[in-house]
Amino acid sequence: IHTRPDPGREQRKGAPEVILGATKETTQIISMAHGLLAGTGRAIISRLRPESVLPLQTEFQAYTVRTLAAARAMAIYRPDYIRKQTGGHIGVISAGTSDIPVAEEAGLIAEEMGCRITTIYDVGVAGLHRLFGPLRELLTQEVDVIIVAAGMDGALPSVIAGLVPVPVIGLPTSIGYGLGGNGVAALLSMLQTCAPGLSVVNIDNGVGAGITAALIANRVAQAREHQSR
Amino acid sequence: IHTRPDPGREQRKGAPEVILGATKETTQIISMAHGLLAGTGRAIISRLRPESVLPLQTEFQAYTVRTLAAARAMAIYRPDYIRKQTGGHIGVISAGTSDIPVAEEAGLIAEEMGCRITTIYDVGVAGLHRLFGPLRELLTQEVDVIIVAAGMDGALPSVIAGLVPVPVIGLPTSIGYGLGGNGVAALLSMLQTCAPGLSVVNIDNGVGAGITAALIANRVAQAREHQSR
Amino acid sequence: IHTRPDPGREQRKGAPEVILGATKETTQIISMAHGLLAGTGRAIISRLRPESVLPLQTEFQAYTVRTLAAARAMAIYRPDYIRKQTGGHIGVISAGTSDIPVAEEAGLIAEEMGCRITTIYDVGVAGLHRLFGPLRELLTQEVDVIIVAAGMDGALPSVIAGLVPVPVIGLPTSIGYGLGGNGVAALLSMLQTCAPGLSVVNIDNGVGAGITAALIANRVAQAREHQSR
Amino acid sequence: IHTRPDPGREQRKGAPEVILGATKETTQIISMAHGLLAGTGRAIISRLRPESVLPLQTEFQAYTVRTLAAARAMAIYRPDYIRKQTGGHIGVISAGTSDIPVAEEAGLIAEEMGCRITTIYDVGVAGLHRLFGPLRELLTQEVDVIIVAAGMDGALPSVIAGLVPVPVIGLPTSIGYGLGGNGVAALLSMLQTCAPGLSVVNIDNGVGAGITAALIANRVAQAREHQSR
Amino acid sequence: IHTRPDPGREQRKGAPEVILGATKETTQIISMAHGLLAGTGRAIISRLRPESVLPLQTEFQAYTVRTLAAARAMAIYRPDYIRKQTGGHIGVISAGTSDIPVAEEAGLIAEEMGCRITTIYDVGVAGLHRLFGPLRELLTQEVDVIIVAAGMDGALPSVIAGLVPVPVIGLPTSIGYGLGGNGVAALLSMLQTCAPGLSVVNIDNGVGAGITAALIANRVAQAREHQSR
Amino acid sequence: IHTRPDPGREQRKGAPEVILGATKETTQIISMAHGLLAGTGRAIISRLRPESVLPLQTEFQAYTVRTLAAARAMAIYRPDYIRKQTGGHIGVISAGTSDIPVAEEAGLIAEEMGCRITTIYDVGVAGLHRLFGPLRELLTQEVDVIIVAAGMDGALPSVIAGLVPVPVIGLPTSIGYGLGGNGVAALLSMLQTCAPGLSVVNIDNGVGAGITAALIANRVAQAREHQSR
Amino acid sequence: IHTRPDPGREQRKGAPEVILGATKETTQIISMAHGLLAGTGRAIISRLRPESVLPLQTEFQAYTVRTLAAARAMAIYRPDYIRKQTGGHIGVISAGTSDIPVAEEAGLIAEEMGCRITTIYDVGVAGLHRLFGPLRELLTQEVDVIIVAAGMDGALPSVIAGLVPVPVIGLPTSIGYGLGGNGVAALLSMLQTCAPGLSVVNIDNGVGAGITAALIANRVAQAREHQSR
Amino acid sequence: IHTRPDPGREQRKGAPEVILGATKETTQIISMAHGLLAGTGRAIISRLRPESVLPLQTEFQAYTVRTLAAARAMAIYRPDYIRKQTGGHIGVISAGTSDIPVAEEAGLIAEEMGCRITTIYDVGVAGLHRLFGPLRELLTQEVDVIIVAAGMDGALPSVIAGLVPVPVIGLPTSIGYGLGGNGVAALLSMLQTCAPGLSVVNIDNGVGAGITAALIANRVAQAREHQSR
Ligand SMILES: Nc1ncnc2c1ncn2[C@@H]1O[C@H](COP(=O)(O)O)[C@@H](O)[C@H]1O
Ligand SMILES: Nc1ncnc2c1ncn2[C@@H]1O[C@H](COP(=O)(O)O)[C@@H](O)[C@H]1O
Ligand SMILES: Nc1ncnc2c1ncn2[C@@H]1O[C@H](COP(=O)(O)O)[C@@H](O)[C@H]1O
Ligand SMILES: Nc1ncnc2c1ncn2[C@@H]1O[C@H](COP(=O)(O)O)[C@@H](O)[C@H]1O
Ligand SMILES: [Mg+2]
Ligand SMILES: [Mg+2]
Ligand SMILES: [Mg+2]
Ligand SMILES: [Mg+2]
Ligand SMILES: [Mg+2]
Ligand SMILES: [Mg+2]
Ligand SMILES: [Mg+2]
Ligand SMILES: [Mg+2]
Repeated sequence: IHTRPDPGREQRKGAPEVILGATKETTQIISMAHGLLAGTGRAIISRLRPESVLPLQTEFQAYTVRTLAAARAMAIYRPDYIRKQTGGHIGVISAGTSDIPVAEEAGLIAEEMGCRITTIYDVGVAGLHRLFGPLRELLTQEVDVIIVAAGMDGALPSVIAGLVPVPVIGLPTSIGYGLGGNGVAALLSMLQTCAPGLSVVNIDNGVGAGITAALIANRVAQAREHQSR
Repeated sequence: IHTRPDPGREQRKGAPEVILGATKETTQIISMAHGLLAGTGRAIISRLRPESVLPLQTEFQAYTVRTLAAARAMAIYRPDYIRKQTGGHIGVISAGTSDIPVAEEAGLIAEEMGCRITTIYDVGVAGLHRLFGPLRELLTQEVDVIIVAAGMDGALPSVIAGLVPVPVIGLPTSIGYGLGGNGVAALLSMLQTCAPGLSVVNIDNGVGAGITAALIANRVAQAREHQSR
Repeated sequence: IHTRPDPGREQRKGAPEVILGATKETTQIISMAHGLLAGTGRAIISRLRPESVLPLQTEFQAYTVRTLAAARAMAIYRPDYIRKQTGGHIGVISAGTSDIPVAEEAGLIAEEMGCRITTIYDVGVAGLHRLFGPLRELLTQEVDVIIVAAGMDGALPSVIAGLVPVPVIGLPTSIGYGLGGNGVAALLSMLQTCAPGLSVVNIDNGVGAGITAALIANRVAQAREHQSR
Repeated sequence: IHTRPDPGREQRKGAPEVILGATKETTQIISMAHGLLAGTGRAIISRLRPESVLPLQTEFQAYTVRTLAAARAMAIYRPDYIRKQTGGHIGVISAGTSDIPVAEEAGLIAEEMGCRITTIYDVGVAGLHRLFGPLRELLTQEVDVIIVAAGMDGALPSVIAGLVPVPVIGLPTSIGYGLGGNGVAALLSMLQTCAPGLSVVNIDNGVGAGITAALIANRVAQAREHQSR
Repeated sequence: IHTRPDPGREQRKGAPEVILGATKETTQIISMAHGLLAGTGRAIISRLRPESVLPLQTEFQAYTVRTLAAARAMAIYRPDYIRKQTGGHIGVISAGTSDIPVAEEAGLIAEEMGCRITTIYDVGVAGLHRLFGPLRELLTQEVDVIIVAAGMDGALPSVIAGLVPVPVIGLPTSIGYGLGGNGVAALLSMLQTCAPGLSVVNIDNGVGAGITAALIANRVAQAREHQSR
Repeated sequence: IHTRPDPGREQRKGAPEVILGATKETTQIISMAHGLLAGTGRAIISRLRPESVLPLQTEFQAYTVRTLAAARAMAIYRPDYIRKQTGGHIGVISAGTSDIPVAEEAGLIAEEMGCRITTIYDVGVAGLHRLFGPLRELLTQEVDVIIVAAGMDGALPSVIAGLVPVPVIGLPTSIGYGLGGNGVAALLSMLQTCAPGLSVVNIDNGVGAGITAALIANRVAQAREHQSR
Repeated sequence: IHTRPDPGREQRKGAPEVILGATKETTQIISMAHGLLAGTGRAIISRLRPESVLPLQTEFQAYTVRTLAAARAMAIYRPDYIRKQTGGHIGVISAGTSDIPVAEEAGLIAEEMGCRITTIYDVGVAGLHRLFGPLRELLTQEVDVIIVAAGMDGALPSVIAGLVPVPVIGLPTSIGYGLGGNGVAALLSMLQTCAPGLSVVNIDNGVGAGITAALIANRVAQAREHQSR
Repeated sequence: IHTRPDPGREQRKGAPEVILGATKETTQIISMAHGLLAGTGRAIISRLRPESVLPLQTEFQAYTVRTLAAARAMAIYRPDYIRKQTGGHIGVISAGTSDIPVAEEAGLIAEEMGCRITTIYDVGVAGLHRLFGPLRELLTQEVDVIIVAAGMDGALPSVIAGLVPVPVIGLPTSIGYGLGGNGVAALLSMLQTCAPGLSVVNIDNGVGAGITAALIANRVAQAREHQSR
């Protein structure tokens, strides 16, 4: 069976191809990773199942391997690979502790696209007072865009989008049970936001949130770049 | 066709029977209102259609008629009827201006059950700074329970339930369009709340929220009563 | 990764922080429990997985550990911890035997918030005659609020709310299969109740029902307190 | 355009063809009614729009016309038509006043199929005490099957199916707003019933409930018939 | 924890209590079965998990044990128990082979309620010619009611209800994948039937279909009984 | 505002552009029709609102106008336009009389694509005996594909696909109320078909069914053509 | 009834307050518009009902009134108001002609936030060849972000996000009927996109898409600004 | 338990009976396969569980066994069985690599029905440039119908149906997570297609897509056959 990888994506889109590990055999991941390493010098794998971690680390001993347990992700680089720094700066906020893995996945992708990440975790609306200090500090550091990961009621992205002057990406997570559980209420609440400037990606789509945020931040950074030159 | 009104409800439940005007002919409302006036001295009609208002006012000229346009509701009293004051105190908060009619409906029922109402309207999460001052004042006045009406994202009840030490009744309103519109996202988000002490009623059910809140406040007030005696 | 516990919740809300055991590693639970024990003298864990019970009992040998198998919950106290008794009194009713675990969870939380609990279990509408006697007795004992746990048709809370003069909290449980299964029909039926004074929490949310009921009962009890002083 | 009426249905099924008036032009109804009158001596029209009533009464002046306003239905008989009496007996119960039209539609069809109808209306679970007396009386009269029409929470059919020794047909009605509104919660709650012996038809399907109940009652009556001969 | 079994159900409803085995521990089933055996001389268990079969057979060696593998069910009788024969006759039809277990469950319950069962299996609409012969024979044998189990498209019950003069109970099964899978399309299609005299129970509810059919058949049989006397 | 009509569609796809009349102003339809007439010599309008019919007939007096009331559609031809006859033959079957307009829409489009249409209307599963004769005749006439329009239970397409050796296009119609109403149950039942060789289009999409069927029939006809040459 | 407008939003968020005209009386709109004109010198009204247009134009004769029929929107400026030009550049693409009003609404808001808009309309995937030329030109002009409005299948935003190196905002429109109609399929398809860098707003939320895009473009433009200084 | 296989299906429909392996015991599959081999000389099993493969290969050693791992399918032939070649030609396209198993299942069935298959895999809309070359080549080879398998956004079938002059069968696959996941968005997007000539089967129904496509292709081929004779 013949597949058609998209080596030109990074060039064309400014966003890397990502291997979705959850639904692939370890051998399939290894083969796809070799392909990407040959083509672009880097392979990123998301939603890695625990049993794939060791075989991948073993296979790619000769490479630089960055394993992010919390994000269930891995990045493998050719020894000579140098990750670019674009100067883009992204805030990543999570409502609860259970939202952190998805938030981390978003952060990882954005970092791999050259952005700097500042995180504020576990500041959900059940105790909103925890949010204001760190958020003020974040804005002082001039982030270009903020990702807000939240499950359950999904209220935090609306609260933040009501306060900050930068675009906010709502990242619903599959946290919560009962009616509207698994992130459905969170996603719907974000789609129904009464705050301006909030767009969303699908439930648990940290990769999508990270790419979108990085495309925004990198475009801003590029403009800044030109300026400093 | 023989119907079976429930004149004993007020006695049994401490909550009045309410005539749902929306799906009834004016003549049917008039006949039911006469029945309730004869039985309990008062008739409350909710979701009154505009065309029913004048005929009702004409029919009940000899009575005291209280028309609440904003709540689309009417209360009719026998001239000798004296509404009891229980001493219960309820806060009614709305997220937007569009949520006010449903909030007013809730308030009206609670007032008819003898409670005092304090309202804070139009303090949604798109501009949360508008909330804190009035909320602090409300808590100073020792309300026994707070109703929070919100449509769209339905985020406000969670924010408030995270802050106050009294039970909160989430009252979703049918505001909002698109996926999760007509109050669905609001209701789901409230059901998924990450804040403690929030229970909900169905979308636009101001009557239900008002009765629940009044049952709570009246029980507290009754205990206070005993005390002061 | 830095988390932000909310030690002030008990103070601010009158409701304890509860650790949701179902989605956490035993080590994570232990660490969070130590944090709460240090802060407030008590740690409550809900939805404990069987494999976590023994390790927790071993870890907290020096503490008082209360394990409620039926509620899949555990409360750990510092030896010097004294649970307050507020004087609030809550009725907890279940429709079937399968609803008991969720009902017990609600009862446990309410007890930890200082309330007294009286339970009536397995009195569903398939044999309604079993209900009336125990319910009459419950009302004689002057409960301040009643929680009714029901899955499948979810009819019992409406039946009870039609009969009693106190607020009722509907607690749908994830019992039932086919269309409307897993508690969906039960929740919707409660939201659509034709009985006055019923508010609801989400499916299986015993913790939410318990906190809401206890906030109500404790406020009433507090008013009674003042009285007796 | 050529249509294929099913004149043999009454013979084959023991149930009459019924013209659904709601979606047809008055002229179309008249033409179809003439067809059925010619074939079977009777035409039944359900969900008649108000504007069709007078033209139909005028058109069929030479016939016996039975107009049931409450059921929004009409039966037209050839002057020589004699409606058979099967001896079947059906109880028809409604939870609220708003459920009466659909209950009446069910009753009408069952009557046209030769059954005797006994009704109990407006005895919903919000005041269950209203139910017991009339229900006991109904059972004394030896009904063969009971139809229970209910909207909103749909709890009444389960309550009744838990009490009576005859088959119960749940007939959900499109009453109720918000989530689970328009009869959805009622239908789901009936499908999830914890009471034995309850089967259901779709929301507002009075015709279906009536035919099913009459098929049952007529089969019982036929067996009784044989006996008395 | 105190439960309230309903020993009077068989007396009151003419339908036995059934133990749902799927969600219970074997020890719990054994204890409940002993209770029912003591009370009524018989215990019926549905949805028995494989691992419970042997322990139950061992425990009840001194009893008559009827194990129906295909129905995943078991009936245990006190040695002196004599199952009544009511004379009711029920047809049970399945569309595919995968629907047979649920059809068998329905048949078992009906048999335990004293009815005679005649089955026609695997005659779905994908090859409708297989249906007509057996169906004609069934009608010759004068069944009082027909249960039709079908998953996937759920078309068979409508086809049969269009042909036979007895009430039909639609029994949707959780067969089928994709949109409308797990019996949802089957149930909805039955609710939307264009054929007269079809009522339904929930997906996979063989017990409910069996009880409803037996209540109908037994009432007819009882009338026949009286006749022959 | 600049729009981009697709004049090449007929050439590229072998299917004409169709103007959806329901959501367009009459003037907009007229302008688009002139465009298509200029380009291809023909304009087809579907879902024409009644108020647009006369103005269109007036505007295009100099043209050949074909108005199909039942299909709510119109075809306008340049006087010199000659509709090709491909030799494709399509059967169009409807379950009820209410499905006829959508069936006619499908037939019209197929005719405009050069096919011959043979219709069988009102042969739903509530009286299946009406189907067999006409269907046998249809197969004798060698249709290349059959469209089956059905609402409510949507059972007919599965029944037919189980019988015929040609591809069947299921065309669900928005007939039916209650759960699964407006064609939803019909569509789901068709998607879940247990019969081989049935593919579907969306509810009420007569245009889509007609184009698909005509693409199939025309390809067969083209092969036949080549043969006869 | 006291409302709390949010005059500081423009300052705080960089996005103007917008009056949703659809659900407001003309007098209410006029009063709110006066408020905003007094505060910020400009009032923007979206989803204006036709009957409100003339009264508003009359009321604000002394002001500059910009009416955008296609977008059903209006902007009113104090005579001295000067709309800032930020230098941000946004592409707005629509799939069909029916999507244009929502696309125009998005464009209007972005223009009011100081951005330049370039539109490509009616280039849906039914004839994809129409897209490539205009899209290439758009990219040459260096847009900072692209909004893609699409109803029905919602496929166009994914196609475009696969091709361009800038962030794409998916704007589903309520076009389409049947299952997944009213924009639901379009929204879900965008949420499920396999293309990188696509975030979405709710169905028909042109205002939300416009604000999000403008926040992005303005941040880029601001960086460019600094550069050119 | 007596089942009724449909040996005449192949004769009647031109489509083979297929054993759905997923829900059957290996012994059951073996017995059914023997039945089909005896009747038609061939047995096809779809959705074979891994543990059934070896036992089947062992059991049918004396037969020709074709195992298609990627399609999770197996075809067993009597040694003397000769698969007919109809001359029908079908294109099978997949959007991603994850859609390949379902695409292969469709291809297998079509091959077993005598068609020739040409595949293009992994050409999704995230990188549309990969599609055009292979698609042009496919059209040159004169396929009679194209199956397009796609999960997630389901956009590819619409894109292709906009380009090609043959009927397209949309085959949604259960790929994708979050809202609209498991193929739901893909199916809905295909049902909502704005491209002409696209019909669909249910999610993951490769068998259904294969049979439909083969029925079309074989009918065309048959006409061609006649021609060449
Ligand atoms: N965690 C993730 N969430 C969403 N998309 C992903 C994720 N990981 C990889 N992808 C994308 O999913 C697509 C997988 O397609 P395929 O592997 O061809 O079936 C690629 O375009 C990846 O960029
Ligand atoms: N706005 C409202 N929302 C919910 N319930 C209401 C409202 N107004 C009246 N009701 C209740 O709805 C029920 C109406 O039942 P019925 O009139 O018998 O159909 C009564 O129990 C009323 O107390
Ligand atoms: N009744 C109909 N059902 C489905 N599609 C239609 C119908 N009538 C026209 N169309 C198609 O819908 C599309 C209309 O797109 P537009 O007018 O650009 O918004 C065109 O491609 C038409 O061919
Ligand atoms: N993968 C598949 N998807 C859809 N239908 C299938 C599949 N495999 C077999 N079938 C059909 O499903 C039906 C199985 O019915 P039964 O085995 O009687 O329950 C048969 O008609 C098969 O032709
Ligand atoms: Mg936390
Ligand atoms: Mg406001
Ligand atoms: Mg019980
Ligand atoms: Mg009533
Ligand atoms: Mg079979
Ligand atoms: Mg008909
Ligand atoms: Mg167009
Ligand atoms: Mg790929």
